[in-house]
Amino acid sequence: MDLQKWQEQLLAKNRLVEDWLEEVLPGPELEPGRLHEAMLYSLFAGGKRLRPALVLGAVEAVGGEVQAALPAAAALEMIHTYSLIHDDLPAMDNDDYRRGKPTNHKVFGEATAILAGDALLTLAFELLAAHLPGAGVSPEIALRVIREIAEAAGTQGMIGGQMADMEAQGQQVNGEQLEKIHRRKTGALFRAAVRVGGLIGGATPEQLAALSHYAEQLGLAFQITDDILDITGDPAKMGKDKNSDLKNCKATYPSLYGLEQARIMAEKAVTAAITALGIFGAKAEFLKETALFLLKREQ
Amino acid sequence: MDLQKWQEQLLAKNRLVEDWLEEVLPGPELEPGRLHEAMLYSLFAGGKRLRPALVLGAVEAVGGEVQAALPAAAALEMIHTYSLIHDDLPAMDNDDYRRGKPTNHKVFGEATAILAGDALLTLAFELLAAHLPGAGVSPEIALRVIREIAEAAGTQGMIGGQMADMEAQGQQVNGEQLEKIHRRKTGALFRAAVRVGGLIGGATPEQLAALSHYAEQLGLAFQITDDILDITGDPAKMGKDKNSDLKNCKATYPSLYGLEQARIMAEKAVTAAITALGIFGAKAEFLKETALFLLKREQ
Repeated sequence: MDLQKWQEQLLAKNRLVEDWLEEVLPGPELEPGRLHEAMLYSLFAGGKRLRPALVLGAVEAVGGEVQAALPAAAALEMIHTYSLIHDDLPAMDNDDYRRGKPTNHKVFGEATAILAGDALLTLAFELLAAHLPGAGVSPEIALRVIREIAEAAGTQGMIGGQMADMEAQGQQVNGEQLEKIHRRKTGALFRAAVRVGGLIGGATPEQLAALSHYAEQLGLAFQITDDILDITGDPAKMGKDKNSDLKNCKATYPSLYGLEQARIMAEKAVTAAITALGIFGAKAEFLKETALFLLKREQ
Repeated sequence: MDLQKWQEQLLAKNRLVEDWLEEVLPGPELEPGRLHEAMLYSLFAGGKRLRPALVLGAVEAVGGEVQAALPAAAALEMIHTYSLIHDDLPAMDNDDYRRGKPTNHKVFGEATAILAGDALLTLAFELLAAHLPGAGVSPEIALRVIREIAEAAGTQGMIGGQMADMEAQGQQVNGEQLEKIHRRKTGALFRAAVRVGGLIGGATPEQLAALSHYAEQLGLAFQITDDILDITGDPAKMGKDKNSDLKNCKATYPSLYGLEQARIMAEKAVTAAITALGIFGAKAEFLKETALFLLKREQ
């Protein structure tokens, strides 16, 4: 599979998730209209939607039904989106642009942006509880999925990582601390995406362990390449300014290890991620190509 | 039951919920410590904990096991607490004091307050998914409870009401619009509290309908008496300034109907709430006294 074929598969997965979202989401015609508008603005702001694609890729790897995992895929994208809205707020990273568009609070104001983030997080859990069972997932697995996602999004996962990242700004951070921050801030949601895909698809414990290992290495590679792009990337393709980490006094893999070493670390993580997929054979093709994409990404 | 006896029962219920929370909550010794500290600061800031008490009161009314409902009771208090933290933010109501203590962002800063709110909301769903089944609730009912709580906290409930309340500031609002705002902003979570208590306790559809009707009238009475207290209350007892609604140009029941008429409306709502409890007999004593308390409340 080449990069173009992978991108086509990613788009096909995106379409499945977006069609599902459009079916179940409240539109701006439903009160309070401006709040729904703000939620949809960020949810459809042109993200790559890697997390939902990972959910569906993991279902495929274990030979499960993609349809059954759409509520979980959508929920993870909503949680990722809410975290971006809140992270961009003036009191947090104070970003004016995201994916080339004005950030949520720039368009709708701070108060609405806070509520839109809260509402996306809340709606994610509502959709999981309401639609997982109807999609053919047993109530026991549905509860386990909700728990995995909540844990990954909470203080031992994404929110905790964001807090640690904030606290580390302007501080001396070593490699171990940097990895710990990102394992929670970015890695936890990747891990949950792949794991809940596996759980919904009926993964064995061995398969679930392999998926977890894949996701951990993928998360690491994602963060390293994200840091590299912040220095070397094309702002037009990324839709945001370069060197934002430097401006925010954030430690990064290139700042700690140098650009060349960081590239080698990313390659190693991608290789480890792909190795973990061995037991799935060709059914894990999409997950494998997703890892390889990270080494070529331009946004 | 007189007011004192009701307060003792409320305290006993609070203790059950707080003991359970202390068992399952991450402490400030767990990283990130400051984030957990911020969450606990607001969660243990001396609220009346009416919502969890309503959950437990509803379980009693239908003859169920109080123990099974503790995760739901705790989750509702966490969601209520997160909403207060976010509502108090400078971009929202910009309040410096809450229950006589500095608000969360005044103590921990805005960024941490935003994350602490996010984390309490997320943790509420984690605890529901993790602990409801262990507490003896069937997976099917657990999912229904999660869905009811998420719906009540979302854009058709609490968050939607907060948004509508913000949009109505400084606008002419009529009685119908005011009731609609509060039915969502405050009423939805009261309704969910009583309903999930009923669901967990094994309520029949008829019992669930009666509990819903009780909760709707209780929510209305709560809001009217809240508005009245904002004018007539003792700031020392309330732990916040008087006339904050006036300052924020908010429409209230007294401002629309006059103080005397608002009092009559509160009494009518309390009577209707108590009437709805008829089918439960003496088992609904706590719910009944909770409604009567609203007419005597000083905070």
